[in-house]
Amino acid sequence: MRVVQKFGGTSVGSLDRIRATASLVERSVREGHETAVVVSAMSGETNRLIGMARELSDDPPARELDALVATGEQVSAALLAIELNRRGIRACSWTGAQAGFLTDSRHSRARIQRIDSKRLLARLKAGEVPVLTGFQGVDEAGNITTLGRGGSDTSAVALAVALQADVCDIYTDVDGIYTTDPRIVPEARKIERISYEEMLELASQGAKVLQNRSVELAMRHGMPIHLRSSFEDVPGTLVTSEDETMERASITGVAYNRDEAKITIRGIPDHPGIASEVFGPIADADINVDVIVQNVSEEGTTDITFTVPRGDFGASMRILEGVCRKMKARDVKGDDTVAKVSIIGVGMRSHSGVARKMFATLAAEGINIQMITTSEIKITVVVGENEVDRAVRALHAAFGLEKGAGE
Amino acid sequence: MRVVQKFGGTSVGSLDRIRATASLVERSVREGHETAVVVSAMSGETNRLIGMARELSDDPPARELDALVATGEQVSAALLAIELNRRGIRACSWTGAQAGFLTDSRHSRARIQRIDSKRLLARLKAGEVPVLTGFQGVDEAGNITTLGRGGSDTSAVALAVALQADVCDIYTDVDGIYTTDPRIVPEARKIERISYEEMLELASQGAKVLQNRSVELAMRHGMPIHLRSSFEDVPGTLVTSEDETMERASITGVAYNRDEAKITIRGIPDHPGIASEVFGPIADADINVDVIVQNVSEEGTTDITFTVPRGDFGASMRILEGVCRKMKARDVKGDDTVAKVSIIGVGMRSHSGVARKMFATLAAEGINIQMITTSEIKITVVVGENEVDRAVRALHAAFGLEKGAGE
Repeated sequence: MRVVQKFGGTSVGSLDRIRATASLVERSVREGHETAVVVSAMSGETNRLIGMARELSDDPPARELDALVATGEQVSAALLAIELNRRGIRACSWTGAQAGFLTDSRHSRARIQRIDSKRLLARLKAGEVPVLTGFQGVDEAGNITTLGRGGSDTSAVALAVALQADVCDIYTDVDGIYTTDPRIVPEARKIERISYEEMLELASQGAKVLQNRSVELAMRHGMPIHLRSSFEDVPGTLVTSEDETMERASITGVAYNRDEAKITIRGIPDHPGIASEVFGPIADADINVDVIVQNVSEEGTTDITFTVPRGDFGASMRILEGVCRKMKARDVKGDDTVAKVSIIGVGMRSHSGVARKMFATLAAEGINIQMITTSEIKITVVVGENEVDRAVRALHAAFGLEKGAGE
Repeated sequence: MRVVQKFGGTSVGSLDRIRATASLVERSVREGHETAVVVSAMSGETNRLIGMARELSDDPPARELDALVATGEQVSAALLAIELNRRGIRACSWTGAQAGFLTDSRHSRARIQRIDSKRLLARLKAGEVPVLTGFQGVDEAGNITTLGRGGSDTSAVALAVALQADVCDIYTDVDGIYTTDPRIVPEARKIERISYEEMLELASQGAKVLQNRSVELAMRHGMPIHLRSSFEDVPGTLVTSEDETMERASITGVAYNRDEAKITIRGIPDHPGIASEVFGPIADADINVDVIVQNVSEEGTTDITFTVPRGDFGASMRILEGVCRKMKARDVKGDDTVAKVSIIGVGMRSHSGVARKMFATLAAEGINIQMITTSEIKITVVVGENEVDRAVRALHAAFGLEKGAGE
């Protein structure tokens, strides 16, 4: 097998953790796998570096910030390579530039354009373990770039694709994806296999284990991701194509997100272009709008309701009060005590009645549904924040998620 | 003017020091000089990184150590560039690889082979300040290399040569070279100009302000080095070609080194090859032998006396006791309470009687000279350690060094 193993900041966060991580690499090598490794910076290091830059300047040039923080992964890659060599495993560290991770020039949020994997592949085949710095690359002009949030996962998947690896193992501090949050539902079960699409929907609903960028990349190239714990030696969750996940419950998991606020503009005089008049100024303020519902009321006016991240609630209300006056709408009302609850599963494509069952379950619990939005493999409802736990428990039980696949 | 400024670890050792250093760069730029900068790692950082590596492994691969410690300069270069930009000065950090510092592949002691200065020069002429990582480069295969001790000074001089700069300013925590140690002789005077040759001899005698490698490189290319303080705004010492240092005392300075031990092997049966039999095993143990004196005694035997660094005294004695038995020499005697005192000056080439004056001065002080060695611009004597201060004071006075150049 050819394997790419990715280790996050906590997995290389101390010399002891680096030793433990080296054991995982060593086992893979001893089992005869061609193994390449991608590491993040030691946990805390990136923040330490950025902290120094911010202390010097309110507006440090993005190019220099990238050059600065890229040292974090270089340190952990070199240290892991040193530990592997001590164990008698030939290993070399590679920076993004050395490994040929060519990106565009958008500092701090660069996109990988291609990986010049020829040299890496030759070393891998010769039995060497390349230890690559995640999160970083180099542009055409030789400037150091970083990939932004979730960049290391993306580096690992991109490398796995470039090396035509059999799997990309992403080691993290959780041991897999669960049917829902075990803190709410103790019966929550680890999911053995999940499709890329479901993983994307789960992540967008607050289960932020893998960044969507890396999942999207894996999906595009059909690269299986094995999400697993670097602390416990147990199987994790395999994120893979739908057609490899045969036996299927109608839904795979229940997700929730408390970080929500709901805003309604009522009595907007109806005319074309309302949505852009409302959401233009919100987007200009870099606020992400999520669930949107628009009703047409009878007297030629319309209501628009939508959710924003709770941290942006105040700013959104201020912006919308101005918008409301300009549009001659009746009023703006806000509620920052709401939450989203979603059920997710590719199975719902072929199982009718999933939505009806969800709504009936919530109704039986006396939970009022404030908003609904659906996609092909997800149904999301907005409910009162204080009803989240009951909603999640009821849905988890109603869909039999504690019983495992195939039920 | 085109200037290369080099700042050592203490000059970038904290954010406050980085701000102060940025002021020196800013002044050079505001004065209209094309300015390139070379920085070391923040003081302590290189040791911190090496400490982690050594904690993991007794024998970390040199390639990985280089990749690890090279991050130190990358951090300080990026931080200085950030601070310069905040002041409205266009500045970019460059790693050794980015700046085209091509070296051989001898990790941790690489030699610069050439600098691909075309891009740097274009940026410099466009008014940008390149901030380069000292101490590091890259080999033909793209591996990160470091230059070893004194590497950052060498980087700066090499860059000044490649950019055809007018001068290489080396900022450090002393404000110049003195005629002798002011702690011993309060009248010691800062030397305004000193030749490369004198600087080399001074350094080899313990005045370790500039590493010899960088001075040798500057001498080879006639690049003036201005050694100056990053803490005080005063002129320092200009290290330059002899022909630019016209007005000349017979000697320039008095140096000393207490880190010495003396070893004598007596009664070695005389035959060709004695020196290599004695010094071969010492060299194998990586011990540097300094002053060597050989006397032929009357009965067909010879005595050899030499000095070693005091830290190597014990090991040297052990090695030589074996050598002594093998060579059937009479005995080995050691003394680790000796020191070297040297007078240095290109002037002594043309002034006769310098040696005589030195010996007479020491004799008048009742100081016993144990060994003597001379070069064209230096006379070194080995004396008892407890006589160093008196010797240095007497020589400084005898040669009128407190009175300044031209006396």
